[in-house]
Amino acid sequence: MEISHIEHIGIAVESLEKAIPFYEQVLGFKCYNIEEVADQKVKTAFFMVGQTKIELLEATSPDSSIAKFIEKKGPGMHHMAFAVKDIEGALKEAEDKGVKLIDATPRAGAEGMTIAFLHPKSTNSVLTELCEDKNK
Amino acid sequence: MEISHIEHIGIAVESLEKAIPFYEQVLGFKCYNIEEVADQKVKTAFFMVGQTKIELLEATSPDSSIAKFIEKKGPGMHHMAFAVKDIEGALKEAEDKGVKLIDATPRAGAEGMTIAFLHPKSTNSVLTELCEDKNK
Repeated sequence: MEISHIEHIGIAVESLEKAIPFYEQVLGFKCYNIEEVADQKVKTAFFMVGQTKIELLEATSPDSSIAKFIEKKGPGMHHMAFAVKDIEGALKEAEDKGVKLIDATPRAGAEGMTIAFLHPKSTNSVLTELCEDKNK
Repeated sequence: MEISHIEHIGIAVESLEKAIPFYEQVLGFKCYNIEEVADQKVKTAFFMVGQTKIELLEATSPDSSIAKFIEKKGPGMHHMAFAVKDIEGALKEAEDKGVKLIDATPRAGAEGMTIAFLHPKSTNSVLTELCEDKNK
């Protein structure tokens, strides 16, 4: 598949409000968007760092996958997302190569992206997302 | 501090040999360097993805910090490294802003970089590295 760059790194945090100051005041980034993704039960905050976004994720419900991740592993890096040009083709290629998929077909993600997750069982335990910006 | 991009994402793996094929054969990256960092007790494999490297880390000893990380949390994303222009100034700025440092002074890292780690207690539990390429 054709991957151009790391689109974003998703980081599970206990509280956006408590986490944002480190990224803004210490590292000097600017939080340019806060968005709630209702079907994922998360509130997200975005920072741009070169080509790549940092996406902080706070659970809005105890049954959110972010809440479960924090319960199991503690807060920290949660997933890595790669920018692809043809997400349907990329998913098919991954599946053909034996990768287990979480999303067999792409769906809507934050920031207007079309996304799909690969299963950590096939990715050395790193939850891996493919993203395509179909508005470009 | 002035951060230009994410220099690399460090990923703890149980075996480079077992992990590399996912990055090469599924995602289509090329492993361009394998390097042992003796004082960190790790073997590393590097891939370039846009501006950012993916650095796979395999412990070479049970008392390596990577072995301990995997024992505690399982394999997965281990640290995030930001490219800075003046690592000494960046470290001083972080310390002045109350960030706990792992490395009070920069030291040599993989690929000829000068590096220093900030303590996860001050970074919302994400082990955060600053890197400067002084050969540039």
